[in-house]
Amino acid sequence: MLTLLISLLIPLFLYLKYIPTSLNNFGTYYSDLVPNEHIRENATFLTLCRNSDLYPMLETIQSIEDRFNNKFHYDWVFLNDVPFTQEFKESVTPMISGNVKFGTIDEKHWSYPDWIDQERVKESMESLKDRVVYGGSESYRHMCRWYSGFFQWHDLMLDYKYYWRVEPEIKVFCDIDYNVFKYMREFGKKYGFIISIYEFKVTIPTLFGKVLEFINGDEQVQASLPDDNLKDFIIDEEGDYNLCHFWTNFEVADLDFFRSDEFKKYFKFLDESGGFFYDRWGDGPVRSIFTSLFLKKDEIFWIKDFGYIHPPYMQCPLDKSTRLAKHCSCDPNEDFTLNDYSCTSKYLKLMNKRAI
Amino acid sequence: MLTLLISLLIPLFLYLKYIPTSLNNFGTYYSDLVPNEHIRENATFLTLCRNSDLYPMLETIQSIEDRFNNKFHYDWVFLNDVPFTQEFKESVTPMISGNVKFGTIDEKHWSYPDWIDQERVKESMESLKDRVVYGGSESYRHMCRWYSGFFQWHDLMLDYKYYWRVEPEIKVFCDIDYNVFKYMREFGKKYGFIISIYEFKVTIPTLFGKVLEFINGDEQVQASLPDDNLKDFIIDEEGDYNLCHFWTNFEVADLDFFRSDEFKKYFKFLDESGGFFYDRWGDGPVRSIFTSLFLKKDEIFWIKDFGYIHPPYMQCPLDKSTRLAKHCSCDPNEDFTLNDYSCTSKYLKLMNKRAI
Repeated sequence: MLTLLISLLIPLFLYLKYIPTSLNNFGTYYSDLVPNEHIRENATFLTLCRNSDLYPMLETIQSIEDRFNNKFHYDWVFLNDVPFTQEFKESVTPMISGNVKFGTIDEKHWSYPDWIDQERVKESMESLKDRVVYGGSESYRHMCRWYSGFFQWHDLMLDYKYYWRVEPEIKVFCDIDYNVFKYMREFGKKYGFIISIYEFKVTIPTLFGKVLEFINGDEQVQASLPDDNLKDFIIDEEGDYNLCHFWTNFEVADLDFFRSDEFKKYFKFLDESGGFFYDRWGDGPVRSIFTSLFLKKDEIFWIKDFGYIHPPYMQCPLDKSTRLAKHCSCDPNEDFTLNDYSCTSKYLKLMNKRAI
Repeated sequence: MLTLLISLLIPLFLYLKYIPTSLNNFGTYYSDLVPNEHIRENATFLTLCRNSDLYPMLETIQSIEDRFNNKFHYDWVFLNDVPFTQEFKESVTPMISGNVKFGTIDEKHWSYPDWIDQERVKESMESLKDRVVYGGSESYRHMCRWYSGFFQWHDLMLDYKYYWRVEPEIKVFCDIDYNVFKYMREFGKKYGFIISIYEFKVTIPTLFGKVLEFINGDEQVQASLPDDNLKDFIIDEEGDYNLCHFWTNFEVADLDFFRSDEFKKYFKFLDESGGFFYDRWGDGPVRSIFTSLFLKKDEIFWIKDFGYIHPPYMQCPLDKSTRLAKHCSCDPNEDFTLNDYSCTSKYLKLMNKRAI
């Protein structure tokens, strides 16, 4: 009887000792490999570029993969107004750890609407070409219009809730060790920026007047403005636009916000006025004004720990311990945050936050 | 009896099923993590730089860690002619996955030897300052002398057999997925270069005469010259120096070669002539001439798959499949290898190799 008991206890002992341990270890091991932080959100990178941007783009992709995406494997959508070449596609694809999709922009989103007087556009380009950067550029005008009202509706973007905009020649300097899209979902953030800046007044003489006309002309729209918005970020003491905007060459956003009925109406109203072509409205001011008015201020967030350059302006964490912990390779003396041409101090003051 | 047998068989079964599997899995798992390729050789990176190079250096370190060293964890030695600041040391250290060591250069290796006529040096600097890059620089002369005859003897370098030289502002573009030092040991390679180039003649008017004097004056030295060296890489049809040299801002080398008796005698002979100061000899020509004469040509190798820039010149793999497989972010149209100012075609012809 004792023999039988011992013989039964031995396997029980071995089972308890090895099997659960082995399972537990696997569990721990697996959760280390795929921590909650690393679960992918429904998000993608988006780049609008030309075939000729291939090599600067490869450096940019390498930077984002090294610092962030090799841990998270988000998708990347590339769009162009003409089809991407085979060379572009086969060079870009192996650099990216998520799925890669290539598309072209619908021609009607990259051309003059029928209500636009093209002679008047030519006169505008002629008049602005020597007065402001891209003042004489037609394609820049198409791009700004597209990045205002069409990017969020492209077939390849429709399935995604969040996006991160990437332009060629940008670089990220710090290890991004958190899942920025998970942060957005969990904390209800709808718009994230890194750099803010004043717009050239000559590019938007009619913009804010049109915005006021839009808001004042629609009671339903007025009712949808939250009280605790960030209007003081964009409106000065006289009630005029202060030229501040989020520098949209980087942004992370909840695309549903820019797919809302309010935004659709807003874009349609502005677009019909022709200002994208007759002035040279940037998507930065157009969407920053909307964002600052139609989001609660807590739904907007400033990202201070990525380290980012879109030449000539750089963001580099001013806090030394952040730079060391995140292995930032940027020079904090080059940081634009507190520069006179930056609006971020204004944002920080409104949010009772500090740059460091 | 049967009960007893079964009771004994059950634990045996469980033992065989779980324990060896668990050990085997661990074995496989461990060997995946530390494959033979990843075993460290006795090697280090070496950077000579100033405290003011901190931020360009951080970008360079990030590039080398991302592309190579985060898989291999080699040490990194930083040297300076003055002590590194606390800021430099604490910023650099967390960026590097191997051990980091900081040192200063012995003053007698960064100053005028007593046989140097400093008035004559001043005249040389005055005469060369507008004729050639660094022509008027005293510290550049000290650096070239140090990187000729002293770097291999610094206390912090003495324990290492191999080294990889890194300068601030360089960048690597391709994933380096093999252990370059293991390759050197296993295949008996003693010197590896990426870019070769012609030297400015005005910086070395007396160098090759001195080299010939050195060789012709010592029968023991002559006897140590291998027949199958790379002399045709550096000597033209008239027997003169053709100005070709390995661009030493990158190099991987077996330090014992530059610690040999022949090299010690060679450096002493050249140094006593004063040419590092009276001309403006670069360590490139000084050591490339020695390397091409005193190594067998198979001990020298050209690295064509790193992708490398030391502005203004870049190496980028010309072979597309290499670029795709190694995720190179460089533009092959910028590759310097077959440029008229590069000597690498000459090297390739001598070695019966092709650029692609």
